[in-house]
Amino acid sequence: MYKPPNPLEVPRFAGIRTFWRLPYLKEIPRGVDFAVVGIPFDTGASYRVGARYGPEAIRSQSLILRSHNPVLGISPFEYCSGIDYGDLPVVPGYIEDSYKRIEEGLSTIVGEGVIPIALGGDHSITLAELRAIARRHDPVALVQFDSHTDTDPNYYGHKYNHGTPFIRATEEGLLLVDRSIQVGIRGSTYSKDEIDKTRRLGFEVITAEEIYRLGIKEVARRIQGRVGDAKVFVTFDIDFVDPAYAPGTGTPEVGGPSSREALELVREGLKGLNFVGFDLVEVYPQYDPGFITALLAANIVFEFISLIGLNKMQLMRMVSR
Amino acid sequence: MYKPPNPLEVPRFAGIRTFWRLPYLKEIPRGVDFAVVGIPFDTGASYRVGARYGPEAIRSQSLILRSHNPVLGISPFEYCSGIDYGDLPVVPGYIEDSYKRIEEGLSTIVGEGVIPIALGGDHSITLAELRAIARRHDPVALVQFDSHTDTDPNYYGHKYNHGTPFIRATEEGLLLVDRSIQVGIRGSTYSKDEIDKTRRLGFEVITAEEIYRLGIKEVARRIQGRVGDAKVFVTFDIDFVDPAYAPGTGTPEVGGPSSREALELVREGLKGLNFVGFDLVEVYPQYDPGFITALLAANIVFEFISLIGLNKMQLMRMVSR
Amino acid sequence: MYKPPNPLEVPRFAGIRTFWRLPYLKEIPRGVDFAVVGIPFDTGASYRVGARYGPEAIRSQSLILRSHNPVLGISPFEYCSGIDYGDLPVVPGYIEDSYKRIEEGLSTIVGEGVIPIALGGDHSITLAELRAIARRHDPVALVQFDSHTDTDPNYYGHKYNHGTPFIRATEEGLLLVDRSIQVGIRGSTYSKDEIDKTRRLGFEVITAEEIYRLGIKEVARRIQGRVGDAKVFVTFDIDFVDPAYAPGTGTPEVGGPSSREALELVREGLKGLNFVGFDLVEVYPQYDPGFITALLAANIVFEFISLIGLNKMQLMRMVSR
Amino acid sequence: MYKPPNPLEVPRFAGIRTFWRLPYLKEIPRGVDFAVVGIPFDTGASYRVGARYGPEAIRSQSLILRSHNPVLGISPFEYCSGIDYGDLPVVPGYIEDSYKRIEEGLSTIVGEGVIPIALGGDHSITLAELRAIARRHDPVALVQFDSHTDTDPNYYGHKYNHGTPFIRATEEGLLLVDRSIQVGIRGSTYSKDEIDKTRRLGFEVITAEEIYRLGIKEVARRIQGRVGDAKVFVTFDIDFVDPAYAPGTGTPEVGGPSSREALELVREGLKGLNFVGFDLVEVYPQYDPGFITALLAANIVFEFISLIGLNKMQLMRMVSR
Amino acid sequence: MYKPPNPLEVPRFAGIRTFWRLPYLKEIPRGVDFAVVGIPFDTGASYRVGARYGPEAIRSQSLILRSHNPVLGISPFEYCSGIDYGDLPVVPGYIEDSYKRIEEGLSTIVGEGVIPIALGGDHSITLAELRAIARRHDPVALVQFDSHTDTDPNYYGHKYNHGTPFIRATEEGLLLVDRSIQVGIRGSTYSKDEIDKTRRLGFEVITAEEIYRLGIKEVARRIQGRVGDAKVFVTFDIDFVDPAYAPGTGTPEVGGPSSREALELVREGLKGLNFVGFDLVEVYPQYDPGFITALLAANIVFEFISLIGLNKMQLMRMVSR
Amino acid sequence: MYKPPNPLEVPRFAGIRTFWRLPYLKEIPRGVDFAVVGIPFDTGASYRVGARYGPEAIRSQSLILRSHNPVLGISPFEYCSGIDYGDLPVVPGYIEDSYKRIEEGLSTIVGEGVIPIALGGDHSITLAELRAIARRHDPVALVQFDSHTDTDPNYYGHKYNHGTPFIRATEEGLLLVDRSIQVGIRGSTYSKDEIDKTRRLGFEVITAEEIYRLGIKEVARRIQGRVGDAKVFVTFDIDFVDPAYAPGTGTPEVGGPSSREALELVREGLKGLNFVGFDLVEVYPQYDPGFITALLAANIVFEFISLIGLNKMQLMRMVSR
Repeated sequence: MYKPPNPLEVPRFAGIRTFWRLPYLKEIPRGVDFAVVGIPFDTGASYRVGARYGPEAIRSQSLILRSHNPVLGISPFEYCSGIDYGDLPVVPGYIEDSYKRIEEGLSTIVGEGVIPIALGGDHSITLAELRAIARRHDPVALVQFDSHTDTDPNYYGHKYNHGTPFIRATEEGLLLVDRSIQVGIRGSTYSKDEIDKTRRLGFEVITAEEIYRLGIKEVARRIQGRVGDAKVFVTFDIDFVDPAYAPGTGTPEVGGPSSREALELVREGLKGLNFVGFDLVEVYPQYDPGFITALLAANIVFEFISLIGLNKMQLMRMVSR
Repeated sequence: MYKPPNPLEVPRFAGIRTFWRLPYLKEIPRGVDFAVVGIPFDTGASYRVGARYGPEAIRSQSLILRSHNPVLGISPFEYCSGIDYGDLPVVPGYIEDSYKRIEEGLSTIVGEGVIPIALGGDHSITLAELRAIARRHDPVALVQFDSHTDTDPNYYGHKYNHGTPFIRATEEGLLLVDRSIQVGIRGSTYSKDEIDKTRRLGFEVITAEEIYRLGIKEVARRIQGRVGDAKVFVTFDIDFVDPAYAPGTGTPEVGGPSSREALELVREGLKGLNFVGFDLVEVYPQYDPGFITALLAANIVFEFISLIGLNKMQLMRMVSR
Repeated sequence: MYKPPNPLEVPRFAGIRTFWRLPYLKEIPRGVDFAVVGIPFDTGASYRVGARYGPEAIRSQSLILRSHNPVLGISPFEYCSGIDYGDLPVVPGYIEDSYKRIEEGLSTIVGEGVIPIALGGDHSITLAELRAIARRHDPVALVQFDSHTDTDPNYYGHKYNHGTPFIRATEEGLLLVDRSIQVGIRGSTYSKDEIDKTRRLGFEVITAEEIYRLGIKEVARRIQGRVGDAKVFVTFDIDFVDPAYAPGTGTPEVGGPSSREALELVREGLKGLNFVGFDLVEVYPQYDPGFITALLAANIVFEFISLIGLNKMQLMRMVSR
Repeated sequence: MYKPPNPLEVPRFAGIRTFWRLPYLKEIPRGVDFAVVGIPFDTGASYRVGARYGPEAIRSQSLILRSHNPVLGISPFEYCSGIDYGDLPVVPGYIEDSYKRIEEGLSTIVGEGVIPIALGGDHSITLAELRAIARRHDPVALVQFDSHTDTDPNYYGHKYNHGTPFIRATEEGLLLVDRSIQVGIRGSTYSKDEIDKTRRLGFEVITAEEIYRLGIKEVARRIQGRVGDAKVFVTFDIDFVDPAYAPGTGTPEVGGPSSREALELVREGLKGLNFVGFDLVEVYPQYDPGFITALLAANIVFEFISLIGLNKMQLMRMVSR
Repeated sequence: MYKPPNPLEVPRFAGIRTFWRLPYLKEIPRGVDFAVVGIPFDTGASYRVGARYGPEAIRSQSLILRSHNPVLGISPFEYCSGIDYGDLPVVPGYIEDSYKRIEEGLSTIVGEGVIPIALGGDHSITLAELRAIARRHDPVALVQFDSHTDTDPNYYGHKYNHGTPFIRATEEGLLLVDRSIQVGIRGSTYSKDEIDKTRRLGFEVITAEEIYRLGIKEVARRIQGRVGDAKVFVTFDIDFVDPAYAPGTGTPEVGGPSSREALELVREGLKGLNFVGFDLVEVYPQYDPGFITALLAANIVFEFISLIGLNKMQLMRMVSR
Repeated sequence: MYKPPNPLEVPRFAGIRTFWRLPYLKEIPRGVDFAVVGIPFDTGASYRVGARYGPEAIRSQSLILRSHNPVLGISPFEYCSGIDYGDLPVVPGYIEDSYKRIEEGLSTIVGEGVIPIALGGDHSITLAELRAIARRHDPVALVQFDSHTDTDPNYYGHKYNHGTPFIRATEEGLLLVDRSIQVGIRGSTYSKDEIDKTRRLGFEVITAEEIYRLGIKEVARRIQGRVGDAKVFVTFDIDFVDPAYAPGTGTPEVGGPSSREALELVREGLKGLNFVGFDLVEVYPQYDPGFITALLAANIVFEFISLIGLNKMQLMRMVSR
């Protein structure tokens, strides 16, 4: 079993910075359920830049994590096993070349039947991840926590950057769009019908204002209802939360949810779904002077791992019956 | 028409730092609806200091803005035209002399029938702005978002600083006090009856605790009811919001509203009012390590511009009928 | 009477940094009701470190305080008198030796019938404080605002650090455990039954999730009901609030209450209790780039002082009848 | 004449942030000698990233500049006229496309017979600048202040990034290599013969250690001797100076010259040369917490402008004789 | 005897922040040789602002000081006695009123025959200090370490700010100008003859470039020769040193001396002079992210105290002979 | 052979943060020449604190390193092989217990005949390292770069902290004191004869002022002469350099050498010595906002590795002859 060391024996600040101090392995051994993997790519950034240092920052803050999730009632490593796979070898300055390397790298993980949890990197990486996912799983549902739709047709005459991955994914047939949902959209938009256009692509879109009106529980129900039993990829852009909770991001939008609301939505909205992968993107450490953005990111990944653990526990209980 | 360049053609981080990359003009051309103007004055500060760099910081963070406001449903530049007028020439260290220059500078804008949106500077500047406003418009209503009443009789034996503008404005007859309202007051006070004294001056005062008890919608209704159809000047002290959302300010008071609540209050409380001017004050960049204060300030100014646009749209629709 | 100077005569930023610019006295004169005292000790820190600079930071931010608390309706210095006693002479690197010095130092204050308000330092100091309190008052009730139970049996094979003070206090018979309550517990835990074990020690424990479910008012009622008329020590770990409001702490846990909620809970949950002492711990200035953590800490101490003032006012009114 | 306003009349912190508060003009009028232009491009960065905010930071710190250079004995605006041309419209994420836009933009300036002073951006931009220069002037000499040769053949299999501009410029025939010189080279290298290879390309290379051995005056003489009367482009990578003086850069190399040495070298090494253009690159504001890197950069540009002024003064004196 | 506590008994980070943990006394007792006093005034600042927090920052970093100065070979408290007198009550926003309060406050110290060591504050305060000095001592010599002459006739039409104290002092007859010297002048100037004009006022001026040419020892000799046996006031503007060593200042000028050079100049240039007062000005903590500016300032004050101690030792030895 | 990956293939910012991206191995394989090992211990700190995050910060900044050292003319991995051994399991808060674990951990490395390069951690760790070294090598010479002698008899009545390791090492017989040397001592001292007492212990001591007087080359000669052919342990306290170059340390002393001087002294003073171990201590990342301290530390370790490589090259050449 691959799991973190006991923090009551070796202090959490001691050790090489892998995620949660998980074993660092470049070959995926048998029996591993998930692999955390960094994708330090930020050439897709259109405004601020610096997400190449996101994986380092998230790993650094992940040291605080302990073994048990009391809200979900799960000690994930009692049921599953995970590693830190290190970073994929991106090519700074060259997005299409990087896409190939990301797709190859992630395919290695996915091909082993292991659930990848990618640490970005800007949001452009998710397109490459979805290509790797679709290679093995065919199109999948998408749950996107984000303040932006990231479905702009292009930027400065180019197809690929962090504002376009989901229109590209749709065009490439990587998604079950009618099982897919975007949550948290807010802020000024490039055009009057930006959100409508995204809906016309097939996505369900719940804006931030709709979250406040509907309440977290209802939004969680809608995510569950939308995805159903489809295989699902979860992408969490840290700009989903308000800049007070996550200043260290690329295109922060004020007036967003709190971390408390985000955590509840992740726990309740995703519980029991059929996960094929996760990512957590758009952490920019140079804009995160108190480290709270990376800390929140690490905790959201902790929830992802807890959700994987819950599913595994369910499965083991079913099997053992 | 004066408006920002298209951010999908020229990246937002490219260009001289005017507000929202608006054209920078020192002469106001015909057909302009509003002018953003910096007032980099901070000699009125009694605690921290540094708001002279507020206009620079707000302009820097305003680059993130895009053309459409989806909550208010308005693309302001479809209906109105605006410029950045640069900064007024204040005199650091000399408040009365600065007041004269601010009043003159703002009168030039107001005299053209253009709505000024001033970027402070500490809150002492609002007195000079109100003098310019009253020169043209006679006394006006005031909507003040703030954690402090700023109606102290004097400081250290002097009449002018950022804690006294609204008692001075009342004394000088610049305000329709019975149409004026202060919202968000909180924190420790210099005396037991500070808030009562402000009410006795004629202001309606809604404290932060009253906001939480009444709810945002009711407070918005009270603002609307108080102001009615009077000409109104809106002053937004960024310390209205909690320091978690706006650390970069001069006299931060804990326990305040969130940015989400502030935005809703601005949108709902001000929609359709008869604006003669706005300011956004008390941004202190040296206390804003993650830039979220200036970012929020820029977004609040975006709401101001959207509100101007909405009014203009209404007017154009009425005219075209 | 010992109280702060008038900030409308001498600006708040002028003067030696005592808490609230209170007189600095190393001998406690007659008639003093409370003494603020720094305990700059951080050898008990298991994750981050640096609380030795907590007292300095809290004192620095306390300058903003004015004389009246409008929510509680009390100007504390009309009824009581307080000083800054400076710092206790701890021994960095040596926890048991420091415990002795803290216990001695605090006993001097407590022995004079003065209520100590200690500024930490990491949470390990509270054990030494409770020893001093119990020396004079016998076991007392504890109200603990915290995201951690701090009742772990030991760390790395040692009994004393900032994760163990309350199990030690229980073992040493310093607490009326059945009158004691912990509020705000959240975050990942070292074991599945960490919270249950704390309850089995006798504490009432209200987790953060329970706070959100019950509401602040109900939690305040539970604190009041639990403590009743017992003598009570209040310990406030600043990590009780969310890292957006208090990034500058040692083991921040995301998804916590806001400062607004914290203040309401302090005011309503503690009003009228029979206080024998307070502390405010775990402020780490090096992780507090915008100073908002220390600012909040200073304001919470302001509420403590206001609560002392309220009790004194009640007493004086009863006496005068 | 285009020049900054008088800082004794309008405080330096007032006004839109152009370089030195020069007039901002997108059309180049007659009689202008130099144009400052931002090139906010950083897709060429191989290590850290963020130079897209370099022009903003340098402009912000340039406000400190006053009219006279007492060391060179020149008040440049007595003899010449300059503007801020704003930024060129780069394409983040796409280096070859950006190269085209930079080349076009710079050609407009150069085509008017105006000396461009470009503010980077990462060092990859200099290749595009040299293309524009060579279009008008044929190959020119290069004086490069830098800790790196930037003549690596390629990175990750690609030709263009900030480590390759000068091998490309050589290959493209943009340089008079035998009149060109690199100064300040230091730090670990990718291969044993990196410096030798650069010398074999034809450059004279003076390493940092050689600067210390030869002394500043001798190095200045070598620059002068190398360039002679050739048309020369000066490129100053801010990592030339030690990280103590310029922390805010992309690939800082310890053990470098001080700012005092850098300034003396710029003044003495370049005085009287036949300039066709300048740039100042690799300022990364997110790594410049005290702003000293951008401040130094602004002062080096001030020396460039002074050198242009000196040449102009010489010319006017010769003409008037 | 008034002196700091022993740092090997009570850790240096423990205690109220007075300078060097000296006793804090508002009445000056007999036998005191020097008094450190804060003057938190910054309304005279023409560029950046924030020196009101200078005294706090210098006191905070002064904690590092130990009892013996090995270079000067003196343990000052073996020969002299000193206190921290707290801060003088300035009036933010009102320079002439503040001048009166500073002059009064300092006169109290000077009137007791005690040498004041003032912690600024911006450089405008030195005029008020010199008024107090001259009241008791008649005109005195001035040694000014600075990168600016601070002898501009006026700013924005006003006589008083931090760029004018020494022309005012000359006009008011407070200085023995022919015994006075300015050292370290550099950076761009407002006019061609700024330095010459200062020389015409009577000051000896040694620019930074002259320091480098002459060497520290020769400059020290010139200071000694210039002042001779006159009573002397020493004013040290922290911008004398390079921004790499002192980023936290108001108008930093690149290309300056190192801290090593500054210390040698202070020790050798001032040794044995007949001091009547000192100040250390222009520390702006908000621009000092690593605290090195305040640290250097505290160490320069340590040298001042050592110099006072040396004089006292000489005197005691002469007396005892 | 264990060595870093090629940075021209995989960008330096990609990958788990080991030192220089060396392979991370917890078992030491055959043929390894050196092992970098973190010792994240800071309970010995008497002033500031936070060196537990030193290893993380140094590893993070070490990514910039490339394969060749052009000054020493060595590509170390052509001759030797090295790994990152991770961190030793210290016990925060408990110095004697930590000493045991450090001694055990280091003995494992040393016992394999591998040269340890420890990343601190505060300077107290060196005592434990020397115990491990002496276990295998008997007493060794010490070269100590430091601004403090660290030979105080005790602090607050205790024997162990970061101010005492070398008096303890002397008492324990771990050092060849007559072959040992301290370089760089400066700053205020606890007593008049602190440096003399250290000399009386047997150390040669060269103060900072002596370095400036003698020159770097002469000091290098003295180090070489002192150590001769003895086995030597090199300890580099980063406070050896001036705070402008290394702000991020625990007890910074102004007026120190530059990084350029430090590097030259390391290269020339240590070249060819018979190394048994190195450490680099007292990096405090929370005081290092621009990361230049950790960057310099990483580069000094690069010099250490280069020196090991040089020795190995010499040996291989001798063998091959």
